[in-house]
Amino acid sequence: MRHPPQRIKATQIVEWNDGLDRSVLDDLAVEEPLEIRIGDADALTITMRTPGDDFALAAGFLYAEGIVDGRHDISRISYGRSQNGEPSGNVVTITLRTGVVLDLDALRRNFVAASSCGICGRTSIDAVRARVMTSPNPHCAVQAEMLTRLPDLLRSAQRVFGRTGGLHAAGVFNVDGELLLVHEDIGRHNAVDKAIGECLLQGKLPLSDCVLLVSGRGGIEIVQKALAAGVPVLASVSAPSSLAVQLAREGGLTLVGFLRERRFVVYSHPHRVQMTGTPAL
Amino acid sequence: MRHPPQRIKATQIVEWNDGLDRSVLDDLAVEEPLEIRIGDADALTITMRTPGDDFALAAGFLYAEGIVDGRHDISRISYGRSQNGEPSGNVVTITLRTGVVLDLDALRRNFVAASSCGICGRTSIDAVRARVMTSPNPHCAVQAEMLTRLPDLLRSAQRVFGRTGGLHAAGVFNVDGELLLVHEDIGRHNAVDKAIGECLLQGKLPLSDCVLLVSGRGGIEIVQKALAAGVPVLASVSAPSSLAVQLAREGGLTLVGFLRERRFVVYSHPHRVQMTGTPAL
Repeated sequence: MRHPPQRIKATQIVEWNDGLDRSVLDDLAVEEPLEIRIGDADALTITMRTPGDDFALAAGFLYAEGIVDGRHDISRISYGRSQNGEPSGNVVTITLRTGVVLDLDALRRNFVAASSCGICGRTSIDAVRARVMTSPNPHCAVQAEMLTRLPDLLRSAQRVFGRTGGLHAAGVFNVDGELLLVHEDIGRHNAVDKAIGECLLQGKLPLSDCVLLVSGRGGIEIVQKALAAGVPVLASVSAPSSLAVQLAREGGLTLVGFLRERRFVVYSHPHRVQMTGTPAL
Repeated sequence: MRHPPQRIKATQIVEWNDGLDRSVLDDLAVEEPLEIRIGDADALTITMRTPGDDFALAAGFLYAEGIVDGRHDISRISYGRSQNGEPSGNVVTITLRTGVVLDLDALRRNFVAASSCGICGRTSIDAVRARVMTSPNPHCAVQAEMLTRLPDLLRSAQRVFGRTGGLHAAGVFNVDGELLLVHEDIGRHNAVDKAIGECLLQGKLPLSDCVLLVSGRGGIEIVQKALAAGVPVLASVSAPSSLAVQLAREGGLTLVGFLRERRFVVYSHPHRVQMTGTPAL
């Protein structure tokens, strides 16, 4: 088991720059599979992730999937052993508290190979909207000017991105625009699972007065994870999809996109963003 | 069933721009689930995708997963019916040619919920490198100057991106830098599956003399899909991961990253890129 986890790996590359080429060392973002297990059962999932904060990632994943409802449902998290019996930093085992019911077979039947998200791994298309959610805090309010400051704060806090240029980030801010925590990962969903998972392990859910900022585009599964965590304002520097907007509208989430420089777009529930003369959607 | 597929959806949004806000119509990239079935079996997978080119997506997915080896393994592709029995543009059914052996149960046992890719859905970490691959064409050669022209060609060919800013693209070029085909999708993997799937349906695999350019970062699963299709040169405008570089080196693929303006980085097998005084890795 590695300690600390290796997030960056130096490698020999060839750089071509306007006709000149040179052979140099460059930093790569490390990508390794993480196997998440519940108790003694087989792997529940394997995700390709940036090593580090694996317990937060595992907890956040279980939370997003509806397997645990909070910190109290987890009695133990530890690194496990690989299939050859060796201790492994790429296997995390979660022991659920006695009494937490888990129908692994039913869960597995609902999992199929998926691209890009957990929600699309479900065998029923209807399941996309089936998970019951409570609307997030309607009284949370944020200033437009504050929102425009968040992307720079997030980028400044990314330790690995600057060296590799290859990582997504998810940051949790309070409504005054203070960065509470940030997580980086090669996968967008993992970065969000790590951020929400850390909050879960610290007993800070729901995030009723927080803004979640993600570096990539906002698909439906990011909206679903934000809603599960009770986040009232989800912001992204990029574009959302049609289904993300639809779920945000149905779920009562304020969805902000294209948050760049001094401009952004509000796709749903703009009442939480304090602007002069905001029209109603 | 929609015809033609709806890739863009207009929606009412609030735009804030340096203190001024206005309520306008904006174009969103449509995201909808696609259920892929084999014969009469239950859904093999559900992926969130941009509607359109669904047959290519389904064929490319089955190819990347090793379920079909080529066009000859597929006898029919059609839209299917949703769970309530209605014809649906979100269900694609593939009928395999008689004699193609498919162990659906074994396949399903290997599928677990996954984030971001198909390859990480396998229950065994070892499976990441287990699929047997032939090294792509060692004699394929491309000019450095030609590579620098590809991103602009790809972007110009993206029909939906310009209107929504939210889509990934995968383009197949010949070694002279001519764009042979491009596919867009809200998911990086889907864009690649669509591109390779179209080639498969046209009987054009393997892509022994082609460059595959993807708009997002290069993770291990994109490298795996490229290797499966026999692509000798895979290029990306963004950063690759450590595992992507490792698999590209082991698999004999030339991996190019950070292809922007007049600069790029070659991470593996640079012999295929014609530069002056190229050092050996």
